[in-house]
Amino acid sequence: MKKKAIVLLSGGLDSTVTLYWAKSKGHLPFCLIFDYGQRHRKEIFRAVKVAEEIDCPYQVVRFKLPWGGSALTDRGLSIPEGRRLDEMRGEIPATYVPARNTIFLSFALSFAEAIGADSIFIGANARDYSGYPDCRPEYYQAFREVAQLGTKFGLEGKKIEIYTPLIHKSKAEIVKLGVKLKVPFALTWSCYKGGRKPCGRCDSCLLRKKGFQGAGIKDPL
Amino acid sequence: MKKKAIVLLSGGLDSTVTLYWAKSKGHLPFCLIFDYGQRHRKEIFRAVKVAEEIDCPYQVVRFKLPWGGSALTDRGLSIPEGRRLDEMRGEIPATYVPARNTIFLSFALSFAEAIGADSIFIGANARDYSGYPDCRPEYYQAFREVAQLGTKFGLEGKKIEIYTPLIHKSKAEIVKLGVKLKVPFALTWSCYKGGRKPCGRCDSCLLRKKGFQGAGIKDPL
Repeated sequence: MKKKAIVLLSGGLDSTVTLYWAKSKGHLPFCLIFDYGQRHRKEIFRAVKVAEEIDCPYQVVRFKLPWGGSALTDRGLSIPEGRRLDEMRGEIPATYVPARNTIFLSFALSFAEAIGADSIFIGANARDYSGYPDCRPEYYQAFREVAQLGTKFGLEGKKIEIYTPLIHKSKAEIVKLGVKLKVPFALTWSCYKGGRKPCGRCDSCLLRKKGFQGAGIKDPL
Repeated sequence: MKKKAIVLLSGGLDSTVTLYWAKSKGHLPFCLIFDYGQRHRKEIFRAVKVAEEIDCPYQVVRFKLPWGGSALTDRGLSIPEGRRLDEMRGEIPATYVPARNTIFLSFALSFAEAIGADSIFIGANARDYSGYPDCRPEYYQAFREVAQLGTKFGLEGKKIEIYTPLIHKSKAEIVKLGVKLKVPFALTWSCYKGGRKPCGRCDSCLLRKKGFQGAGIKDPL
């Protein structure tokens, strides 16, 4: 019998490749999608389309961070544009949402316990990334401890694994992996602005562009 | 200048004593209250009353766990009654909400980063408690690592402390501490059922009763 797994799905490139990867490895993915007031709300609909395309059940969790603090949720703050990769690595941008991945993983942990899934997949990447602290391997190592110690599962001696299959990959390698797994890139969405077309200038667009260019493939978006 | 602190406030006995304790130690508490579909919704209003009484700002975060899995959020499941303390320690009850404290702490971490608070207070108790895994000291130790590694604060070398001042206290000691700190016990609410009067039979009522009896004080509820 296939083992249930929770996959955090934003509808972007990385999480979609992660979902296809988990399925290809024989897991039975349950997608977890967040509606947290992000200005690129569009990604939520794309995430749902991706989950439907690959025929996986999904849940949408809604919450709002009343304290703001991020350009991703606060339209009064502007999204940085045109940053070079070395700048992205050197400085945490205004799009950082305080403790976002910790909140996401906590809900994933709750979902995993509730349905008896024994693993969580997250498409975090610590190579071609925006400098977010909650994308680094040591952070995930710490969260594994929390998952083990803070759950009924853990107390009963069962193991909950947290997989970060893309963490050391370049964006080009992620795109290539996606091609191999037949990921429907046209359904995904990366741009932080969530307009009709990708802006091409935010960190997320620039990283995506780098990936497709590096892989020598045309982005269907 | 007083240092900002996030206090997780449920409106129950332990979190209210924790709030008064934090304030007495010179912190500037910001209360964090959760509306997560608990059947004892009444505790939310009590938490707000407590925050107003002690004159602390507060935020309410709303979310729902679409996967259920707990008698505290699912009216189709019944709340265990009449358990002895040794039974509570031996078995995780149906009122356990999967990964709840991890979700709560994650939001607290986000709030702390957003307003520049350098500590989080939670009234967890590992002595007179319901056997929940996320009430144990080793769990909090693991979460401290996550807080440090998963935030901008942590990356910048600042320390975020997680305080669990009640973790080793008995319920009687907590009540006595509350008396000393002039905690308005009449405003608090513990019963899981959230009826007009406390049921007197759920784990939470029984633990509260044990505390007041042990301290030799009459519960104003």
